[in-house]
Amino acid sequence: MNSQLFTPLFASHEAARLFDDNARLQGMLDFEAALARAEAKTGVIPAAAVRTIEGRCRADLFDIGELAEATAKAGNPAIPMVKRLTALVAETDKDAARFVHWGATSQDAMDTGLVLQIRAALEVIEGDLDRLAAGLAGLASAHRLTPMVGRTWMQHALPVTFGLKVAGWLDAVNRHRERLCELKPRLLTLQFGGAAGTLAALGEQGLTVASALADDLGLTLPNTPWHAHRDRVVEFGAWLALLAGTLGKIARDVSLLMQTDVGEVFEPAGAGKGGSSTMPHKRNPVTAASVMAAATRAPGLVATLFAAMPQEHERGLGNWHAEWVALPELTMLTMGALRQVADMVPDLEVDTARMRANLEVTHGLIMAERVMMALGAKLGRLHAHELVEHATKTAVSEGRHLRDVLGEDKAITAELGADELDRLFDPLGYVGQAAAFVDRVTG
Amino acid sequence: MNSQLFTPLFASHEAARLFDDNARLQGMLDFEAALARAEAKTGVIPAAAVRTIEGRCRADLFDIGELAEATAKAGNPAIPMVKRLTALVAETDKDAARFVHWGATSQDAMDTGLVLQIRAALEVIEGDLDRLAAGLAGLASAHRLTPMVGRTWMQHALPVTFGLKVAGWLDAVNRHRERLCELKPRLLTLQFGGAAGTLAALGEQGLTVASALADDLGLTLPNTPWHAHRDRVVEFGAWLALLAGTLGKIARDVSLLMQTDVGEVFEPAGAGKGGSSTMPHKRNPVTAASVMAAATRAPGLVATLFAAMPQEHERGLGNWHAEWVALPELTMLTMGALRQVADMVPDLEVDTARMRANLEVTHGLIMAERVMMALGAKLGRLHAHELVEHATKTAVSEGRHLRDVLGEDKAITAELGADELDRLFDPLGYVGQAAAFVDRVTG
Amino acid sequence: MNSQLFTPLFASHEAARLFDDNARLQGMLDFEAALARAEAKTGVIPAAAVRTIEGRCRADLFDIGELAEATAKAGNPAIPMVKRLTALVAETDKDAARFVHWGATSQDAMDTGLVLQIRAALEVIEGDLDRLAAGLAGLASAHRLTPMVGRTWMQHALPVTFGLKVAGWLDAVNRHRERLCELKPRLLTLQFGGAAGTLAALGEQGLTVASALADDLGLTLPNTPWHAHRDRVVEFGAWLALLAGTLGKIARDVSLLMQTDVGEVFEPAGAGKGGSSTMPHKRNPVTAASVMAAATRAPGLVATLFAAMPQEHERGLGNWHAEWVALPELTMLTMGALRQVADMVPDLEVDTARMRANLEVTHGLIMAERVMMALGAKLGRLHAHELVEHATKTAVSEGRHLRDVLGEDKAITAELGADELDRLFDPLGYVGQAAAFVDRVTG
Amino acid sequence: MNSQLFTPLFASHEAARLFDDNARLQGMLDFEAALARAEAKTGVIPAAAVRTIEGRCRADLFDIGELAEATAKAGNPAIPMVKRLTALVAETDKDAARFVHWGATSQDAMDTGLVLQIRAALEVIEGDLDRLAAGLAGLASAHRLTPMVGRTWMQHALPVTFGLKVAGWLDAVNRHRERLCELKPRLLTLQFGGAAGTLAALGEQGLTVASALADDLGLTLPNTPWHAHRDRVVEFGAWLALLAGTLGKIARDVSLLMQTDVGEVFEPAGAGKGGSSTMPHKRNPVTAASVMAAATRAPGLVATLFAAMPQEHERGLGNWHAEWVALPELTMLTMGALRQVADMVPDLEVDTARMRANLEVTHGLIMAERVMMALGAKLGRLHAHELVEHATKTAVSEGRHLRDVLGEDKAITAELGADELDRLFDPLGYVGQAAAFVDRVTG
Repeated sequence: MNSQLFTPLFASHEAARLFDDNARLQGMLDFEAALARAEAKTGVIPAAAVRTIEGRCRADLFDIGELAEATAKAGNPAIPMVKRLTALVAETDKDAARFVHWGATSQDAMDTGLVLQIRAALEVIEGDLDRLAAGLAGLASAHRLTPMVGRTWMQHALPVTFGLKVAGWLDAVNRHRERLCELKPRLLTLQFGGAAGTLAALGEQGLTVASALADDLGLTLPNTPWHAHRDRVVEFGAWLALLAGTLGKIARDVSLLMQTDVGEVFEPAGAGKGGSSTMPHKRNPVTAASVMAAATRAPGLVATLFAAMPQEHERGLGNWHAEWVALPELTMLTMGALRQVADMVPDLEVDTARMRANLEVTHGLIMAERVMMALGAKLGRLHAHELVEHATKTAVSEGRHLRDVLGEDKAITAELGADELDRLFDPLGYVGQAAAFVDRVTG
Repeated sequence: MNSQLFTPLFASHEAARLFDDNARLQGMLDFEAALARAEAKTGVIPAAAVRTIEGRCRADLFDIGELAEATAKAGNPAIPMVKRLTALVAETDKDAARFVHWGATSQDAMDTGLVLQIRAALEVIEGDLDRLAAGLAGLASAHRLTPMVGRTWMQHALPVTFGLKVAGWLDAVNRHRERLCELKPRLLTLQFGGAAGTLAALGEQGLTVASALADDLGLTLPNTPWHAHRDRVVEFGAWLALLAGTLGKIARDVSLLMQTDVGEVFEPAGAGKGGSSTMPHKRNPVTAASVMAAATRAPGLVATLFAAMPQEHERGLGNWHAEWVALPELTMLTMGALRQVADMVPDLEVDTARMRANLEVTHGLIMAERVMMALGAKLGRLHAHELVEHATKTAVSEGRHLRDVLGEDKAITAELGADELDRLFDPLGYVGQAAAFVDRVTG
Repeated sequence: MNSQLFTPLFASHEAARLFDDNARLQGMLDFEAALARAEAKTGVIPAAAVRTIEGRCRADLFDIGELAEATAKAGNPAIPMVKRLTALVAETDKDAARFVHWGATSQDAMDTGLVLQIRAALEVIEGDLDRLAAGLAGLASAHRLTPMVGRTWMQHALPVTFGLKVAGWLDAVNRHRERLCELKPRLLTLQFGGAAGTLAALGEQGLTVASALADDLGLTLPNTPWHAHRDRVVEFGAWLALLAGTLGKIARDVSLLMQTDVGEVFEPAGAGKGGSSTMPHKRNPVTAASVMAAATRAPGLVATLFAAMPQEHERGLGNWHAEWVALPELTMLTMGALRQVADMVPDLEVDTARMRANLEVTHGLIMAERVMMALGAKLGRLHAHELVEHATKTAVSEGRHLRDVLGEDKAITAELGADELDRLFDPLGYVGQAAAFVDRVTG
Repeated sequence: MNSQLFTPLFASHEAARLFDDNARLQGMLDFEAALARAEAKTGVIPAAAVRTIEGRCRADLFDIGELAEATAKAGNPAIPMVKRLTALVAETDKDAARFVHWGATSQDAMDTGLVLQIRAALEVIEGDLDRLAAGLAGLASAHRLTPMVGRTWMQHALPVTFGLKVAGWLDAVNRHRERLCELKPRLLTLQFGGAAGTLAALGEQGLTVASALADDLGLTLPNTPWHAHRDRVVEFGAWLALLAGTLGKIARDVSLLMQTDVGEVFEPAGAGKGGSSTMPHKRNPVTAASVMAAATRAPGLVATLFAAMPQEHERGLGNWHAEWVALPELTMLTMGALRQVADMVPDLEVDTARMRANLEVTHGLIMAERVMMALGAKLGRLHAHELVEHATKTAVSEGRHLRDVLGEDKAITAELGADELDRLFDPLGYVGQAAAFVDRVTG
């Protein structure tokens, strides 16, 4: 509940600030100030009340500890916030105090406040997404023709290029950016319905005020209040979890490539990052671990949001409450992971020599398919298959390189000269559309 | 694994058919047939091979039991499927058999096959969504001015209209339809990458074939193969879970309204649906229960999909496998719930008299806010508040109707005549923008 | 990450204190102090080193903010903790500083520290469980023969007693207490393995030190270090989630009974708890909401723990990290819910008159089964069934009480006199083993 | 809903049979037969009725398709089952038909039937657990002194033995067996409460019948019916998920060790298991993938069970329904994974030579800590640390073996002779308590 120890590891100071108690309170207060402005503009409350109300809508005038105690009794933090705000306004202007929170309900302040917090977070997120995409695009381009082992089932399969691997990461990141554009208008939407969602306390002027309020806050005016329909925020939670999944995919690939046994790609070492004093050969993938932690936690957090959707009647009982911690936590966590990956990508250390070397680990077997197809074009597929299969068995049992075994089989050398054989064992010659795929993503 | 007992309750025969073993197999075979056509068209395989291959791409030529055993050994069903298909083709045309599955990998067949299954499901889903939206629109319009109790925290709060409640449901359903339109192009996308995602086995013609294949199947050609990037299908899973959440919200509201203690809305009785022979007064909300079951299960299923996203290198190990059951299950479940709600809505029994009667359960207290505001306009808010608060206390302690208590207080009757008091206690006069909100959604 | 706003609502100050940064740090430091003692006792380090080390193992000597930054680089908080502790010790005694954390690894400190935190939490939990059980037992006994409506499918079914309902809650709580007794020895277990789980750095004395350390801390010495086997802590997480489920069941029942439409049981009002100024009739079930929030969040949190179990080799990468926040969060959340329910139960307001009144809502239909059985004993079951079914239809269609309708049917009155009929409509006569079940749980 | 394709891969034929429609139906019918016997024994129904009822309690007399349709209407399968059973009995004996399901409710049949299914599954599970434990014990003993690389953060850390790794697996498996012993009495418990949990329809004889019924079925008689308290079955679900987590840990370790880049341990090849025709070097870890799939799916399934716990009043609405599919699925899945691991373990191929070779991958750095400690005993820890750190830097930068670099440093060779240095680089000399830990588990 009250931890800063893991903020830099799992979130970021910036993310934590956007979702701490202060920011939550300020989000609600920004709603209250805008409400006063909108209601004055539409003649619902006296214009004179606005200035005092606005002036008191500052989180630093509130005592979080007191609010916390009152929240436990009231069942939500908006009730004591409104009470305290009213008292603060009344200190200066008793009349104005009567118009605090006029016609609104707690959930209006909490939901709209949350939306404002999310909007601020989205600016950070979009910046990091852009930065990540740029970093990945640079990396993909730089390594569009850097051959490495493609691994399926965690087994060496066929050559790929590192650029292609990175292009796959980038393509997914780009899809997330596209999704975010689509969902933003649904998400950045005003919540304003009053006690039961009818705006009854505002009489005929309910929609007029709502519209002015949405304008003031720069939010969409929804068709209906969405207090008991949580799909807007849960969709955002799902987007975050989807992004966390992709970040986790990147982190998993990096951690696998960074194994001592593989040694192809390394997180930037930073200042003492991930080092071990007693085990000098170790460089722990701290970023990957932190991102994998996010990818491991995100599914549970988003499942909570989904599970909380069937809320009772005009206001949920407990399920709405479940969102209050789960959604900010998921947001901070994903923001942290995104920041970490965006920071890591441009400085990834890529050991292209080791990538080359690892392509040789199977002593040429990784190229067997290619030889088979080349030979098949000359001898027919069936015969080629037999010859190559025989050679691979020999190579494996005698621990020799497939190229050498093939070079001794006259049935093969009759068709494929030494140069041709050498060419066939160049992995870069068998990476298919790798470069074209990279270009489709980065182009 | 092999259950039909719950198909009509939790899914539907149609949904079950679209995701049974046969459909899964046929999805893969449709890929294989289209691949042969596309490769013949682009000159990669002989045109003569197509007809035989196509002709054997029929699920009924395969033995599911045999495939199942072979799947356990191979680790996926596409490997034995291709083996068996090749044998079937070879019976007629040995040459054609050489070109079965040419240049493709198991995952190409499985993922693209899945996309084809989902496309078929989407037709059903979209039909049911349209039907549901139409049903809800009709219901919302019919009851746009039917007053009922608005309940927050499961407590009587203020009047709303039943139409507004339904409009809230509809607004959410419409957002899901919008989301589906947006995600469809990302979802209905070809998977085709060959053994390691490079299409290397097709040499220079990889992209040409891929493009022809996408055309043939009517699917989008992606920038890169997405075998190890699962966001396309997980996004769909999240959409399903989001929809299930909204359906659960509707079901929860209906089940609460259908309580013997409330009695405002009832599932259609159908032919003996939900009846009890020994408890003649009971009518069990069978549809609501079945839909709530879906809403309860969806979060866990979609969490699995999110959790499975960080897949290793060029093909996941176990996490991809986790999708194979979880996604179809989630789809069927949500299809079933959608169908049930779409069927239920037009025939919901709405007891408007009971809604009216329930508005009286608190003996007028539900209108106290309104009286306070009317009185406040005349006496000042503070004084009005005191008077009404006093009256409500009397009403509660003496078990009398608030209107009657107010009618005896001369300070009040001096301002509000009997007619005016009666008017203030008409709940329909205090439903604010309910009708306007309904119109914004249905209009 | 840094929130106190919801501590009293969703956790408790006590729970929050047991799992804040300070407590986490102190847990690790308690491990380090005990390690020094155990190693001195077994002659591994000089006895002289102990006092200085022990004296510096105080969380208040550390700067959490600095640790947080270093944690992000090191990948866990134990590494900077050990570094700082070593520096603190060196200020006084350079020799002693050499023996800080001797032969241990970060995870030893973190896991054992966590176990110590959990042990402290268990004392609180056990106290609250005892208190809850006592409260429930009192309530069950007091209402063992208080008749109320039994509801299945949220429909009136047959009479039960409130005591039986409470006995069901209690029986589940008792099972949780039993489970806790069983799992405690597995949970309160030392973690001590050194860098790779072999205790190699301690040479021959590894097990001797481990045994002394376990003794010193009052923890079980495990067969093997469990650093990469998380079932001990995940089992505890599952226990918490199981408890949260039962607390949620209680909260759900209370919230349903507290509906304005039902009005049978109420949370204690407390000082202004759950009140609403503009809606004087409302008393919001704040406790139920807060507990339901816990029950809604627990499944996602425990799912994270389960998902994190397959940890890589000798130390997990990311999945272990995922536990660090999820398990404390789950513990605090469940502790909060437990505390709230334990506080609520003794002061629940039970409206036995309303319970009685609600038994009449169906105008006697709730007793139809009983009448049918009484009549069946005289007329044969089939004939009785026909007669009663006919009467219930009449009662429903004419809106009359079933007893009155039956009283007019001579075929019935010939068998059942007026007194007998009255007796049959006494709900308390048809609660079966309710009291016996209560006694089995409370006795 | 209706799939056999993945049964052998993800479950097993045996598991699938224990939880198919037929077994579910038979479980309920076994309850009905036992109920008749118990009620006859206690004089509640005529002894003459038993034989006919018992004789019709055979699943093969029922049409699953018909039951499925009726289930969708009734909301559970027990209602149509009882109806059909009554009809079957009536064909022979109209009197007996009156006593079918006497005094019971649907949930009694469904829950007790489920418990009977689980009991049958437990026999299989316990057999496989024993087999797995025996296999692991054999493997741990055989390799108690087989040195291999210990990996933390997926980086080479220090030597361990393969036996120790396996002992860790075994220790966890043994804890699961212990847990199962503890929970069995809670799980294998009769459910019998009648329509609202009071057994009212049985008058005074409710508990007498319940007791006789529990005896007949060999189940525990609970203090109270547990229809709305699901902790008994959810605890079992949590146990399954816990076991799945451990199986996933084993599978993850195997899949990491089986990487082409590591090559230390291999799944048994079986008859063509995991092979690839075009990539002859690949052997896919099919078992590990299938087990990882289970470990990936289990958290979502068990989360569903936890989420479904807060069930309404005397019978849940939708949440109970959610269990019906989720629990059997989780059971089958875990049974399948258990079977696969139990089958795999005895035939794991362990390449001890490769383990040895991989210990050399870091050119001796993995032994640096040991050298440092040996040298520290002679030169003081600080000086030793400096010397060794310098040597490791030289070794890394010049790509040489640490032993060779150390052997050239006179400050070192003065203290450590060539033999002593060689001895220090024997990994088996630095595995600490590995063998002792193995013995503690297997002894």
